[in-house]
Amino acid sequence: MMLVALKPIEKLSHIRRIRVASYQSASGAGASAMDELKNQYRQIVNGEEVTVSKFPFQLAYNVIPQVDVFTDNDYTKEEMKMFNETRKIMHSDVRCSATCVRVGTLRSHSESIWIETEQPLDVEDVRKAIAEADGCQLVDEPANQKYPMPLYTAGKDDVYVGRIRKDIADENGLTLWLSGDQIRKGAALNAVQIAEYLIKNDASLKK
Amino acid sequence: MMLVALKPIEKLSHIRRIRVASYQSASGAGASAMDELKNQYRQIVNGEEVTVSKFPFQLAYNVIPQVDVFTDNDYTKEEMKMFNETRKIMHSDVRCSATCVRVGTLRSHSESIWIETEQPLDVEDVRKAIAEADGCQLVDEPANQKYPMPLYTAGKDDVYVGRIRKDIADENGLTLWLSGDQIRKGAALNAVQIAEYLIKNDASLKK
Repeated sequence: MMLVALKPIEKLSHIRRIRVASYQSASGAGASAMDELKNQYRQIVNGEEVTVSKFPFQLAYNVIPQVDVFTDNDYTKEEMKMFNETRKIMHSDVRCSATCVRVGTLRSHSESIWIETEQPLDVEDVRKAIAEADGCQLVDEPANQKYPMPLYTAGKDDVYVGRIRKDIADENGLTLWLSGDQIRKGAALNAVQIAEYLIKNDASLKK
Repeated sequence: MMLVALKPIEKLSHIRRIRVASYQSASGAGASAMDELKNQYRQIVNGEEVTVSKFPFQLAYNVIPQVDVFTDNDYTKEEMKMFNETRKIMHSDVRCSATCVRVGTLRSHSESIWIETEQPLDVEDVRKAIAEADGCQLVDEPANQKYPMPLYTAGKDDVYVGRIRKDIADENGLTLWLSGDQIRKGAALNAVQIAEYLIKNDASLKK
């Protein structure tokens, strides 16, 4: 999902570093994890004891700074996947440091992202590039309270990007926010789109 | 809260830049906002329509990337406060870029933080400095699933810090996670502690 938003920016200037904090929904852990979260809220509302089984801790009214297991460098596998897959898919030396956090939403992951580019970028150019990119929707009118939120991107195909602005800690930096239904974009829809692309472009399949 | 954790690190090496993504609880918007969130979950469990008044959107099963109003540079007032107050309290030229996000927890804010220091830091030195610092508690045993979480820091006085590790995007960088009850540390308790400090240290009060 992050790369759908960063690809059009990479075309404007090479991205050297990425820091990303995620807000990942229960659905990332499967349908039964979504049921567990809903059940926890039902139990709380009814004054019952809360059942915990799919997540390491109660997720209702909580956030858990762990998605998947820890590796030797104290990053989780999920976080190292973001480091490794970003390099692979971007075909670049970009370095990504992620903190993956489970939050109490049902569907759609969100991400708060800082990028450092080789050249300083103009925010309006970036907005334009995002708006024109395949699979991206620009939702970036803060004055009108328009920004992406997981409750409203659930079940949608695109990655929604907003809150694009200069990184006030770094001249060559930019920060942005995105939200998208990772079940669609991260997994199922991606598989379908890759299949469609192959059928359309692969001559061997056209024989 | 962030500065309670960063002060001991600043003593090891000057912090030049900070990027921080927050996970802020309903309590930051007052007791009635906590009631609204609880009420939203009750309404959802009972199949009723959800009432929205304290927050710009439904917060139950959602995260909202806006805390306070937007300023001219598309950062919110809350985010600019983190830039300005960090410089003031740290007495330094540190630059902080924040994205403040409301999540569906009742009490305790959390933060995912990246810092860039003048000299590269050793993670164990940082853990030691945090463990010894006033007002800080080190909770950093990822292999044993020990890290700070808002559900367990609510109502406590200290700032809980964990997930300390190298920023794999930058040799001079470090990333960490914290959680603490901002009602206590950010507001009421701080006022009491400042008063106590003044009484203890201000000669004019000892006359």
